[in-house]
Amino acid sequence: MAVTVGIVGATGAVGQELIRLLHEREFPFSSLKLLASGRSAGKEIQYGDKTLTIEEATPQAFAGMDIALFSAGASISKVLGPEAVKRGCVVVDNSSAFRMDPEVPLVVPEINAHAVKDHKGIIANPNCSTAIALMGLFPLHQAFGLKRFIACTYQAVSGSGVKGMMELENQLRAWSEGRESAPSNYPHPIAFNLFPHVDVFFDDGYTKEEHKMLNESRKIMSMPDLTASTTCVRVPVMRAHSIALHAEFERPVDVEQARQAVAAFAGAELCDDPAHNLYPTPLQYSGKDKCGVGRIRRDSAIENGLALFVAGDQLLKGAALNAVQIAEELV
Amino acid sequence: MAVTVGIVGATGAVGQELIRLLHEREFPFSSLKLLASGRSAGKEIQYGDKTLTIEEATPQAFAGMDIALFSAGASISKVLGPEAVKRGCVVVDNSSAFRMDPEVPLVVPEINAHAVKDHKGIIANPNCSTAIALMGLFPLHQAFGLKRFIACTYQAVSGSGVKGMMELENQLRAWSEGRESAPSNYPHPIAFNLFPHVDVFFDDGYTKEEHKMLNESRKIMSMPDLTASTTCVRVPVMRAHSIALHAEFERPVDVEQARQAVAAFAGAELCDDPAHNLYPTPLQYSGKDKCGVGRIRRDSAIENGLALFVAGDQLLKGAALNAVQIAEELV
Repeated sequence: MAVTVGIVGATGAVGQELIRLLHEREFPFSSLKLLASGRSAGKEIQYGDKTLTIEEATPQAFAGMDIALFSAGASISKVLGPEAVKRGCVVVDNSSAFRMDPEVPLVVPEINAHAVKDHKGIIANPNCSTAIALMGLFPLHQAFGLKRFIACTYQAVSGSGVKGMMELENQLRAWSEGRESAPSNYPHPIAFNLFPHVDVFFDDGYTKEEHKMLNESRKIMSMPDLTASTTCVRVPVMRAHSIALHAEFERPVDVEQARQAVAAFAGAELCDDPAHNLYPTPLQYSGKDKCGVGRIRRDSAIENGLALFVAGDQLLKGAALNAVQIAEELV
Repeated sequence: MAVTVGIVGATGAVGQELIRLLHEREFPFSSLKLLASGRSAGKEIQYGDKTLTIEEATPQAFAGMDIALFSAGASISKVLGPEAVKRGCVVVDNSSAFRMDPEVPLVVPEINAHAVKDHKGIIANPNCSTAIALMGLFPLHQAFGLKRFIACTYQAVSGSGVKGMMELENQLRAWSEGRESAPSNYPHPIAFNLFPHVDVFFDDGYTKEEHKMLNESRKIMSMPDLTASTTCVRVPVMRAHSIALHAEFERPVDVEQARQAVAAFAGAELCDDPAHNLYPTPLQYSGKDKCGVGRIRRDSAIENGLALFVAGDQLLKGAALNAVQIAEELV
């Protein structure tokens, strides 16, 4: 079955990966429409030997489209998502707009592919740090029953899109030339720095990004009673997120069994041989579909606890890859 | 009372800060002897309008010296520390050589200055990430009674000395010039990367650096039953460590009371106004004596729990400043 596909936000960092993945994974599309803001309309994008022309993302652009992959921010999704659905298109949305809507499935295919079929026109793609953390947590949940976890993230600048990546590059280039380069996208310099601030702050002192980790994990794993606490930190790394996890389980844990569970899980690659300096690093997992999971050890502060370290490509499993995997479930 | 002082490892990153701090804090020294390996002997170091000449660190060099500040690694401390003591010199040691020796006080002056007087010739300076974490944890312990904590670190390359700082600089300069620069000091590239590997691995899957956080915290705060679990991560930041902490307390916690406790604590500066993008960052706390403590919030996964974020200069509170503060207690 060949389908007509559209990408909303085709010029962004995630949009670029979506184009690449649809081709490389031989997604069965009969046509691919690239949509972006009016500002980008008419621009041409090269992919392999093809030249693709950007069209303006208007409600009418979704007529005759089977699947639209949205990655242009929550406000665009809120306006154009329902317009696409109205025209018979199924929306896979990478923004936070619909993730916690009880009518909208929130899907990581390795975990809850079954939820795709319950969609009413929109399927949400989880936040990048949640998707990557779950590649380590879910196989351990299956083995021992997850109860609660603490997550501390090390998030790449690609999470802020092309402008985040440009800002890190510009500041480092300025440093190498002995110039100053003031922050524009971020509230503080990101070169040689980091800050515990990703997305907006809530009154409880957590950021929205930190709330997403708990709320989305609960929904994806169907665990309404799960508890978690997260500190999200932006670091001067280009495009893979890392997450240190300290988790408590219902049942007694075993490190060897934990390693086997991770190794057997489709979304993860076991990378856990400290004696040979093997553990996940963001540079190593940039551009990789699977997330690396390592440093698995018995937690010294938590009964039935395990500590682990996960790294995964923010633009792939954290965004574009997961969206394409959802689209693959649809067809 | 004027004393004769020596610095062992005077050419290192911590040694340089020791020289500066002894002068700037007007430490009452009548003479300052700079010691290093035979290779560095004869080299001259400029400090202000003074020229100081490096001498070789031999047992005889400690004759007539009142206080020696050691920062040349554990193996040097193990050999030369006892030689200095034998000659009547009090050793303040920045290495891990004697920290867990029950005969040796391990001191953070804001916490256990009283322990200095129990010394038998050697006083140990804690590991950098422990000293910095405790600037956030100890005032909260006083307020609510610390029970256990999870720490995830973001450790600067200065923790590996001048060679760590050079490696980050070299790799970034190579990147800016389009060259490759292979890692030499670290097992992986550090530019645009990070890795959960600081110090050597133990059989239980933790690193020595991660063990230090628990063992040294227990000793400094006289809390043998404290539990903790730590993930230590090296990040591409130059000289201040950051630590995300999620801690459980004996008594009910209150965020406003926690902020007041931190603000009143000598080693900390409260930096906690997220609405104005104020929270500790390593760039902001580089070169500062006090450690920044912020992002204080009720932990959403731990009863009587608080989450917080601490940043502090690794070469100052994490090393040289704490050593000089101990020496100040001695005189």
